[in-house]
Amino acid sequence: MSKKNFRDKLRKVKQFKIDKNNDIDDIIHSLENTGFNAKRLAKGCEIYAQMIADTKCTKFFGLAGAMVPVGMQGLIYQFIEEGFLDILVTTGANLTHDIAETLGYHHLQGEMDLNQVDDVELHENEMNRIYDVFLPNNVYEGIEDFISELEIPDYNMPVSSFLKYLGKQLPQDSQSILKIAAEKNVPIFCPAFTDSGLALQLGFHFQKLNLNHFKDMLRMVDLAWDSKNAGVCIVGGGVPKNFIFQSLQFCPTSAKYAIQITMDRPEPGGLSGATLSEAMSWGKVNKDAKHSMIISDATIALPIILWYLKTRV
Amino acid sequence: MSKKNFRDKLRKVKQFKIDKNNDIDDIIHSLENTGFNAKRLAKGCEIYAQMIADTKCTKFFGLAGAMVPVGMQGLIYQFIEEGFLDILVTTGANLTHDIAETLGYHHLQGEMDLNQVDDVELHENEMNRIYDVFLPNNVYEGIEDFISELEIPDYNMPVSSFLKYLGKQLPQDSQSILKIAAEKNVPIFCPAFTDSGLALQLGFHFQKLNLNHFKDMLRMVDLAWDSKNAGVCIVGGGVPKNFIFQSLQFCPTSAKYAIQITMDRPEPGGLSGATLSEAMSWGKVNKDAKHSMIISDATIALPIILWYLKTRV
Amino acid sequence: MSKKNFRDKLRKVKQFKIDKNNDIDDIIHSLENTGFNAKRLAKGCEIYAQMIADTKCTKFFGLAGAMVPVGMQGLIYQFIEEGFLDILVTTGANLTHDIAETLGYHHLQGEMDLNQVDDVELHENEMNRIYDVFLPNNVYEGIEDFISELEIPDYNMPVSSFLKYLGKQLPQDSQSILKIAAEKNVPIFCPAFTDSGLALQLGFHFQKLNLNHFKDMLRMVDLAWDSKNAGVCIVGGGVPKNFIFQSLQFCPTSAKYAIQITMDRPEPGGLSGATLSEAMSWGKVNKDAKHSMIISDATIALPIILWYLKTRV
Amino acid sequence: MSKKNFRDKLRKVKQFKIDKNNDIDDIIHSLENTGFNAKRLAKGCEIYAQMIADTKCTKFFGLAGAMVPVGMQGLIYQFIEEGFLDILVTTGANLTHDIAETLGYHHLQGEMDLNQVDDVELHENEMNRIYDVFLPNNVYEGIEDFISELEIPDYNMPVSSFLKYLGKQLPQDSQSILKIAAEKNVPIFCPAFTDSGLALQLGFHFQKLNLNHFKDMLRMVDLAWDSKNAGVCIVGGGVPKNFIFQSLQFCPTSAKYAIQITMDRPEPGGLSGATLSEAMSWGKVNKDAKHSMIISDATIALPIILWYLKTRV
Repeated sequence: MSKKNFRDKLRKVKQFKIDKNNDIDDIIHSLENTGFNAKRLAKGCEIYAQMIADTKCTKFFGLAGAMVPVGMQGLIYQFIEEGFLDILVTTGANLTHDIAETLGYHHLQGEMDLNQVDDVELHENEMNRIYDVFLPNNVYEGIEDFISELEIPDYNMPVSSFLKYLGKQLPQDSQSILKIAAEKNVPIFCPAFTDSGLALQLGFHFQKLNLNHFKDMLRMVDLAWDSKNAGVCIVGGGVPKNFIFQSLQFCPTSAKYAIQITMDRPEPGGLSGATLSEAMSWGKVNKDAKHSMIISDATIALPIILWYLKTRV
Repeated sequence: MSKKNFRDKLRKVKQFKIDKNNDIDDIIHSLENTGFNAKRLAKGCEIYAQMIADTKCTKFFGLAGAMVPVGMQGLIYQFIEEGFLDILVTTGANLTHDIAETLGYHHLQGEMDLNQVDDVELHENEMNRIYDVFLPNNVYEGIEDFISELEIPDYNMPVSSFLKYLGKQLPQDSQSILKIAAEKNVPIFCPAFTDSGLALQLGFHFQKLNLNHFKDMLRMVDLAWDSKNAGVCIVGGGVPKNFIFQSLQFCPTSAKYAIQITMDRPEPGGLSGATLSEAMSWGKVNKDAKHSMIISDATIALPIILWYLKTRV
Repeated sequence: MSKKNFRDKLRKVKQFKIDKNNDIDDIIHSLENTGFNAKRLAKGCEIYAQMIADTKCTKFFGLAGAMVPVGMQGLIYQFIEEGFLDILVTTGANLTHDIAETLGYHHLQGEMDLNQVDDVELHENEMNRIYDVFLPNNVYEGIEDFISELEIPDYNMPVSSFLKYLGKQLPQDSQSILKIAAEKNVPIFCPAFTDSGLALQLGFHFQKLNLNHFKDMLRMVDLAWDSKNAGVCIVGGGVPKNFIFQSLQFCPTSAKYAIQITMDRPEPGGLSGATLSEAMSWGKVNKDAKHSMIISDATIALPIILWYLKTRV
Repeated sequence: MSKKNFRDKLRKVKQFKIDKNNDIDDIIHSLENTGFNAKRLAKGCEIYAQMIADTKCTKFFGLAGAMVPVGMQGLIYQFIEEGFLDILVTTGANLTHDIAETLGYHHLQGEMDLNQVDDVELHENEMNRIYDVFLPNNVYEGIEDFISELEIPDYNMPVSSFLKYLGKQLPQDSQSILKIAAEKNVPIFCPAFTDSGLALQLGFHFQKLNLNHFKDMLRMVDLAWDSKNAGVCIVGGGVPKNFIFQSLQFCPTSAKYAIQITMDRPEPGGLSGATLSEAMSWGKVNKDAKHSMIISDATIALPIILWYLKTRV
């Protein structure tokens, strides 16, 4: 890049100030004039808003991490309800915990210090720990009861079809991700489905179950193939990130918008922390894509992004 | 902890939802019912509000990291202006950049990808990089002019006294941290002062300068000693964290409130990432202290905290 | 813990010194007397050696991350060849790259700085990037040829059975993980198999393929159920970690030995970074287990562990 | 970079294998053919060996982190003893702990899990915690006795001169960093000296002490100015990194060799995690420098580097 071109691209950092009457829009626009991850977050908000405004854009959303246990089930529900995502790729764990919450069980949290928590004692008390969130074992009995009453119409259907069927069995008036996705015709993909408590119980009860993972894979490729303007938002990384990105290689334009929120970093070489630029070498992200990788705990960044988007609806 | 006591401390995770009419207060209170760093951030907001409400509390604030270059000079200005901090401990770099901005120079940012930036080319163009923020070399000439006109009244005064003197030399109507601190009688400590561009230029111009770092150290111990209810907010870590904490060992009650915002973690054993609980073993943080360690880029967490606090003034 | 008990457990940190005649055994034993991750690595070496010495121990090994591209295919080959692992759980990506290397293709590396690498240019040159490792696109054509000649005996077999079949089709005299595992009867599980280039090509060529993921899941539970003294070594985290741990809940004693090598940390709440202590609350790791979580790039820690183990064979 | 040039720079990743007769030299050379941090570590070893072989090279060594408490006092001693470093920049904490060990006190470690350690209880037992290392409070009484007997010849000397004086007061036959540095005429700089327990006790006993930090700063600039071929090895980051780098701006060639070992990363914008490439934009590292940034706990990487170097002496 020539000296002149480079200078032309630069503008002043504006020192951040706040007024008590500021709203989320003001704050995000102020942060755009700073740097580091504040700027990346502001840019992420802006790119997501553009994805929504682009009526030709298919919005792929990857969700890893214990987002439902920590209290982000309601947030994902709102993303789906508002039409902020078109295709969800997630983990079996998030779906297991979605069912638990939907059946009336609850994850727990509290005021104690983590170093006052004894994992051996927790085990004796049948309380499972997910960092600073706790889940009583009896939740799994509730899920088991729910599973045992299912009448699965086809033992060989794709996982995504099964998840839609499952969503329909869940009670109305819940904040269930599975439920709202089924209602809104948002497909949910779960490539590592058998890596979950939900699948374990299905496997124990329906010994002949052989949900077709390959059909999901091909269906996902078709969805990418048919996308005019693909956009992605990756929360965490893991299988959901890779599964979306391997499909986007078959999208004619690859991703034109790309956001990732993660605490992972590139140096250890894993895909979760790989930069969005690296994905350009693979043809997963378009060379002209608007993109932002936000190094942040998703529980902080996602609520801010949703808040920003909600003010624009 | 007995089974009963532990259960009593637990309450339901409330699934996060947002309404477009929500304000920052609503959001923070919603996040308090979740977990991971969202909860820690919410708790940090709440603890900081309590520190401010506690009229006996001396509020120590440690500021490491390139917070001025990235656009947080204005934010720190507001913390001081509002009386949200009583004692500031920071790096020479932040002060150097504070003077640069105050003298009318600017840090720059832009839209380019970082992998399109060539550091060798930047050097040839006399442009210094601080991650995604840029600083033209000529800034240092401006600082040099400013320094060369100083008439330092005492070559052996403590650094904190010198910084107060310096603040008074800076132009009115600026967002200068040094200026507002001098006006508000907020002492600024800078234990590693000679590790900065500002000190280099002072040293070149005033060969006999021997600012007394030991008097700063003892003054800081006295401030801690005299604190009724000490509270700390640590941004980043580094020398500012250690300098505040070594002094708090001499505070009769040690810190009763403690917040840290950092991306550092405990496992490599450095002080920056050490937990606030660890500081209890040293008597730096009180065993009953309200405390929260927020693992987040400070450029995201600090603006949120300030926003929350501003609505309460 | 009482004061006396605690003191009794403590011993002097011995200052680390090296003699040019030291061997890997000396170094590891010296590091055991230090702290931080050096101690954890030394402890990990020691625990792994105990797992091997314990003839009743079933050794579960989880392998996430781009370990084959980066040059650790040979290392994993040696772990299997030496009998250092009994069950391997890994990602489809590692298996895809294993086939690529085995068919005579190569991953590439070089001396360039990463910021001199242009991902857009790489894409134009059909060169895929995995951090600082590069993979020419034509590798996939080679894999495609290999896949198209397969005569899969059963379209509904478990993935683990298919991977054994696949291993047998690969050329002799290679360093293939799939090959040596098939020879040594070490089952390979790949719960997110369809999240890989290998599965994509299989799906394109064999439209009716429906490998049975549920049978793998149940088989893995059986293996855990039958384990007398389970031991685990987790590299990275991700699905392999969770899949091993969900199965170990069904192991009568749960894991008695547990090692993890990762750069992930607990604070963002994901399973990859969760402590091995947290796994005790779930009954995945035994309350009396010998365990060590090593925060390190696996490319550094794994060669050291293998080296240490090899000297004991 | 043109396509041809790029390809010419690439070579095969060689799959890592180990033979039980391998020595450290074999291992490091094998790792050079891989990627991620294994390759960076191997490259770091090689660069350090070149620095030593280059008789015109002045070797600057920055040491942050709790390296003495964790057991790396002996390692640093050996670096100095062997002539592997010419100038040491470190923290007051490392020097305080160096004196403690040298006076016969000890840091402690043990087998307990960290979540079995109660920091409040530790405080009651006068035991300070540094992650998984412990330091009894009475150490400070020993240091106090030592300090109180000093007869400081000049209250206004530079810190580096004082540290040399201090080294000479310490007992022979120790592993003291201060002692061996004094003997070998290796200057020790400590820009944040008053941020330490050692300085606190000096300040309490010698109220008129005003060690001249500015003379250290200028002396360091002179040393950089006079360096023919500067080389740097940074452990951790913090003030030692910045202090070395601000001085190297005055070195005619800037650093020709640069190694950093750290767990910090660039994205939050702090200097500790800044890439060595970024330092080129400032003229701190030469554009043609051989450099390697190793993302690793220093307690793992440093012993390996020392071991590699020792085999070459």
